[in-house]
Order: sequence, then structure tokens, then C-alpha cells
Amino acid sequence: MGEFELIQRFFTRPTRHAVLGVGDDCALLAPAPGMQMAISSDMLVSGRHFFPDVDPRTLGHKALAVNLSDLAACGARPVAFTLALALPEANAAWLEPFSQGLLALADAHGCELIGGDTTQGPLNICITVFGEVPAGQALLRSGARAGDDLYVSGTLGDARLALEALQGKITLPPEVLAQTRIRMDQPTPRVALGLALRGVASAAADVSDGLLGDLGHILQRSGVGATIQTENATHLIAACAHSTGATGLFGLEISANKALQCVLSGGDDYELVFTAPAHRRAAVQAAAQSSHTPVTCIGQVDAAPGLRLVDAAGAAVANDFASFDHFA
Amino acid sequence: MGEFELIQRFFTRPTRHAVLGVGDDCALLAPAPGMQMAISSDMLVSGRHFFPDVDPRTLGHKALAVNLSDLAACGARPVAFTLALALPEANAAWLEPFSQGLLALADAHGCELIGGDTTQGPLNICITVFGEVPAGQALLRSGARAGDDLYVSGTLGDARLALEALQGKITLPPEVLAQTRIRMDQPTPRVALGLALRGVASAAADVSDGLLGDLGHILQRSGVGATIQTENATHLIAACAHSTGATGLFGLEISANKALQCVLSGGDDYELVFTAPAHRRAAVQAAAQSSHTPVTCIGQVDAAPGLRLVDAAGAAVANDFASFDHFA
Repeated sequence: MGEFELIQRFFTRPTRHAVLGVGDDCALLAPAPGMQMAISSDMLVSGRHFFPDVDPRTLGHKALAVNLSDLAACGARPVAFTLALALPEANAAWLEPFSQGLLALADAHGCELIGGDTTQGPLNICITVFGEVPAGQALLRSGARAGDDLYVSGTLGDARLALEALQGKITLPPEVLAQTRIRMDQPTPRVALGLALRGVASAAADVSDGLLGDLGHILQRSGVGATIQTENATHLIAACAHSTGATGLFGLEISANKALQCVLSGGDDYELVFTAPAHRRAAVQAAAQSSHTPVTCIGQVDAAPGLRLVDAAGAAVANDFASFDHFA
Repeated sequence: MGEFELIQRFFTRPTRHAVLGVGDDCALLAPAPGMQMAISSDMLVSGRHFFPDVDPRTLGHKALAVNLSDLAACGARPVAFTLALALPEANAAWLEPFSQGLLALADAHGCELIGGDTTQGPLNICITVFGEVPAGQALLRSGARAGDDLYVSGTLGDARLALEALQGKITLPPEVLAQTRIRMDQPTPRVALGLALRGVASAAADVSDGLLGDLGHILQRSGVGATIQTENATHLIAACAHSTGATGLFGLEISANKALQCVLSGGDDYELVFTAPAHRRAAVQAAAQSSHTPVTCIGQVDAAPGLRLVDAAGAAVANDFASFDHFA
């Protein structure tokens, strides 16, 4: 199978919205009047972002999901994407499920594949995604203000639990591993919530490198600080719902501190962390309901710079939770 | 040096045109009314698209040049680009010249870096470029018609000569190698010519995989064929200007057939191959002059499908010149 047959067979479909899709030197998009284009690019490397033997169908899903998550964080509606793919070999048995997982998520969001590139090389997937947002309505990292409530969507920490279990660092019962592994392999981009938060949230980011690190970007660009109530945060692990034992979370050999670490700096969550003025609490709840996405208030934005962790009694909790850094 | 310091130090500059640049979840572009966005993505892999020890400054140039070449082929004006970069290590001694080569070409075309991604991994450079073109005016591959003249810009084959010399397959004198190597390492995207050909050319593509292969895409999408006069084609090698000897081209051990192979299927040229109606010859020459880019008529478009090569006497020349395919 040659390069052009590969593209034709797995990655070429009629375009529904784009002016021009796969097959020319460029694709062409015609943004609607008054719309701005939101653009994000993410690169996934084998052995770094996924296990080399990962199911290609879930990898196709995840490669697009992490990009859609960036659009969600901006409140942009997905429109289209390009795919650049380096492959060790043109293997149909791998490409077919990969393209199916990729295009199923794309179809679910009305986001069409309009172009890209394929080459021989160590497995590398680079997707650039395009969304549209009315001019001036994008959710930015820079809008948080002192007194705002601090929220996260969905659940946090499960992907990290799965990773550590697969790395042999912790032990999870099979049903908990299966549940957390779905969160690691097939994250749900919070696109509907991002759209519903336009005009409600004051700032937003997606949680890819870990909550504290990604929140840190909001605080830095907004020139503010924040306080997080950690006992609320621990309950954000979805697997917590299964917890019954007395020997630690999940009745397992996992300390409360490990659970907190997974929530605060685990990464790979693809939830939204966002802020909203206190008087907009009802609007935040309405956005959560209309988008069928749970949201949890985990703290407040402060005028004083820096990030503070406090327990239920308001006492300081030591913050030694490092965010993920590819080169640190 | 961590991931965010790397981005801040080498790849973050104030945006002049984009609504929002590096540092948020997405970048934001505001296309001008009536404009369409032309989008192209190219991935460069170490050992495949460039030698692992290539000068990082010229690599930065080339990585953007091959993308600008796609915009040129569409007649789009460069606006912005994203950069996704997998690096074995965060090495400032490599990143500094790489970013300088990249951004110098970007500045020369008013094309600003608005976002991207960095990760640890085998060296891989994926750029997605954005241009604007008035609605309906993009040059497409599908517009060639029987009777049109067939043109190429600039010179062809030099990059392939340099590659084969560096691989030890042929021998070139130092001054010829230096000249051809500049063409391989630092191609000139024909952006100005592409803009000047709007409304003049009937179809266009850029020559990246080899003239015959890229012309083949035009013919396929236009439903036509073409005839190329090969003796015109051979003179497209820039190094030919230095040819004086009687023992072959350049007075070297290079046969006329090798020269023809370099021109017709060498690849890595980043020139434009385009068609235009015969009655637009003056307009083509005016576009060439206004863009300071030589163009050469090398044949004609035919109604009969297929690609024919003929010599000066009109006799058929065997076509065994395969185009580059990453998986063939």
C-alpha cells in the first residue's frame, strides 16, 4: 500500500462543510461572518503519550480528543482538523481501527478531516484542530478575578491511577483498573460544557498536564492567586464512588496523599478548570445541566498571587505536587 | 530548561495580526471578510526528510518553507502557523539556530507563529500553516483544461543532485555541490508567484515529490493528460548553467538520463507546476516578472489521459521515472 492509497483508503471522505478537503495542496475553510477561528495543535509520541501496544482504535479517539479539549477550553465549536502521521509501516490492520476511532469521535462532534500528511518514521500523531467562536466570546486563561469561584468538570485523577497501575507502581482490582483505564485511553472532551460556559466563565483551561499546573497558567495570565479545598478535590476521583474499605481509598493500598496527588497533578484528564464570578453560580449550574457535565466548586480565586491548599478546617496542606513537564 | 521556558524563550513573540497567539489553549485568528482560510500541514522526520546532523538554522527554514510552498500553490497569502516539535532533549544550542532560521523566513513572509506543542521524542517537526485567499480565487489542482500550456517555476533537480552526491551515488565538484545543496536545504517557496497567478493559472501544485508525480495529481483531478518536451526539462537544472564539458552534463560523470531523472522525479524542489490557457501567455510572463520568478513552458495539457514525454523531434521518450512515495 503506497502513501496515496493509504490516504485515499483510510482518510478521505466527502467534505460536508469545508470548501475543499483532502487532496489538494491546501484545504479551504470559509469562516462564517463574525466568527473567529480557534486553532490548537497537539503531538502524540509513542512511548511518551501512549503505550506502543495501545489499541489503535482508542489511540485514534484520544489523538483527536486531546485537541477537541483545547477547543472546549476556549468555548469554540469544532469545525475541522488536519492529521499528520508518521508511521513505521503502512499497516492496514493498524490503520483501519485507528481511522475508525478517530473518525467516530470526529463525526460525533461534526469535525471533519480536511487534510494532512503521512510519512514513514517513528510513530507520531500530530493533529491541528479548528473551531469557531463568535468574535470576543472565546474563553481565555486571562480573565480570572479575585473572588471568582474555582471549578473543575467531571472527574480527575483516574487516568493517573490507571497509568501507575499499568506501570506496576500501585495495584488496582481489575474492575477499578478497567474503569480508570477508559478514562486514560478515551478521555471525553468537554466541548458541550465549553460552549455552555461562554459568557459565564471568566477564565478556562483544559487539564492535560495536571490540575495545579494548568490552573497555574490561568493564575499567571490573570495576575491572581487561588485557594483549593483539598477534601473536595479527593472526591473527584471517579473510582472513589467504589470506595468502601477502611484501609485507604477504594479499600486499597492507596494513601489519601497518593489520591490527592493523582487529582492535583496526575494529568491526562482533559477536564476543564474554570473560574466564574460568585454571582454567576446559578448560570454555572445551568451550563453543567444543559451540557450533561458535572462541575464541582473546589475553591476560590484570591487577589494574592500563589496557590494555596487548605483542608476542611482551613489549615494549610503542603503543596509538593509537581505538574507534568516534558523536559523537566 | 523545562517545556514552558523552552516555549517562552524560543517561540513566543508578540502577535501582530492574530487576535491571540502562543500561551492559551487555542490561538485565535480573525479572517478578513470575504477571505477563505487555506490550510496545509507537513511533517518532517529526521533521517527521512533531512540528515540528522543538518544545520538547525537551515532546518528551521526548510520546515516552514515546505508549508509556505503549499500556500503558494493555492495562491494564498501566508498569515500564521503552528509548530509541533518532538525533541530528544531541550538543547538550547540546537533550538536557538532552529528558531532563528524558522522565524527569519516567517518574518520575510509576514507569517506569525501563533501556537503549537513541544514534547520529548524522536526529532519530528510538524507545521500547520494558514493563509488567506479571496473566496473563489484559490488555485486548485482541478482546473487544467486541454490546450493549456504547462509551466514550471525556477529550477528543478538540483536538490536531488545534492542528495545523491551526499549519499555518494554521484560526484559533484565542491562549488556545484554547494550550489545544489542550498537548493536542497533552503528551498524558496514561490509565494509571490502564486499570488501573481491568481486569475491567470488554471491549475497549480507544488513540486515536492517530483514533477511527474505532482503534475500527475493535477492531471488526475482535472481529468486530462499532458505532453512534456524533455529537452526543455533538462535545462531546468540550475547547475546546468555551469555546464561546459563534453563528457556529460556539468562536464561530469552524470548522464543526460540521470539529469532528466533529477528534473522529472527528483523531488524536494518546492517549485510550482501550473497550467494556463494559451491566450494567457502574456499574463503568465507578467506574473513571472512581477514576482521576480522565472517560469518555463515545458509542454501542453491534452484531452487524452496520461503523461507523455517527447524529445525535440517529437519522438516518444520512455517514462520510467517514479515519483517519491513514503511507503512504496
